[in-house]
Amino acid sequence: MPVRTQPENTLTPIPVPECSPRKYCGCVRAEDLDEKFPVVKIDSNALDAVRLLAEHRLNGLVVVTDTSETPFAVLPASQVVRFIVPGYVQDDPGLASVVTESMADHAAEKLGGKTIRDMLPKQRQHIPVAEADDTIIEVAEVMARLRSPLVAVVKDGKLHGVITASRLLSAALKEE
Amino acid sequence: MPVRTQPENTLTPIPVPECSPRKYCGCVRAEDLDEKFPVVKIDSNALDAVRLLAEHRLNGLVVVTDTSETPFAVLPASQVVRFIVPGYVQDDPGLASVVTESMADHAAEKLGGKTIRDMLPKQRQHIPVAEADDTIIEVAEVMARLRSPLVAVVKDGKLHGVITASRLLSAALKEE
Repeated sequence: MPVRTQPENTLTPIPVPECSPRKYCGCVRAEDLDEKFPVVKIDSNALDAVRLLAEHRLNGLVVVTDTSETPFAVLPASQVVRFIVPGYVQDDPGLASVVTESMADHAAEKLGGKTIRDMLPKQRQHIPVAEADDTIIEVAEVMARLRSPLVAVVKDGKLHGVITASRLLSAALKEE
Repeated sequence: MPVRTQPENTLTPIPVPECSPRKYCGCVRAEDLDEKFPVVKIDSNALDAVRLLAEHRLNGLVVVTDTSETPFAVLPASQVVRFIVPGYVQDDPGLASVVTESMADHAAEKLGGKTIRDMLPKQRQHIPVAEADDTIIEVAEVMARLRSPLVAVVKDGKLHGVITASRLLSAALKEE
């Protein structure tokens, strides 16, 4: 039996509403699977975003702009981790081992004055997005190709929800 | 407040043991942060591995061999999703939209006769591994560079535990 420990008193429980009584009936589409998920604005504080992700143990974040309801970027948790790696270590990974303990221990501190926009890659990346009526296979193909732990589902040009990898696998198993 | 829905009756609760009373004291090392995590053997059934990941909503799996206690591979959940994408769709993503509903709905079925070994990339990948005495920054650097949602921690040549991205961020915030 797998066991995971959790840091004490750091997690806010996420309310889990009752699942809608959907039948998995051989016509499962992305909009049937997606879930509500925290969304962060591109000009919001980077430290707040890291807190959100850490507290709720999320796989990643969906970034939106003020002017559009379609996702602007999807940040996997592994890429949010990049925020706490000093630039000179990203340029030369060998330097990670010479960062002193006190520098390592205050890694998140410097994010306070930065925004999500500051932290995004300079070149815009492909966004893992599916249309509301896409099948499990279409969502899986995007997720695997872009190596993203989540896919944003868009309906009528607006963010409808998010599908995580484990959610998708769970749905695929139900259809066996 | 973020809200996530969950599929009904599909999740087995993971027992959460009491956290050990570690002090975050400016000398946090990988072995202080890592958690127990399910490990799968390389010759185990691929379908069982998908079930494990889906049921416990894991970020990924650590793969070991029969002959060594060091990790052989780390499979992010997004790459396990690849298992349910037919090979011809992986080769030509445009074909995802022409997979019929009935094919999509039985995507997991064909995994029953396959092993994890069958599903690993032909060419062995870099493994996200940290030593027990690595700092937060060293773990973060590996995680970000290899875009992995988890890093396996090795002590004396043996798997000691796993650090997820959200766990690492949580630790970095504690040190502010």
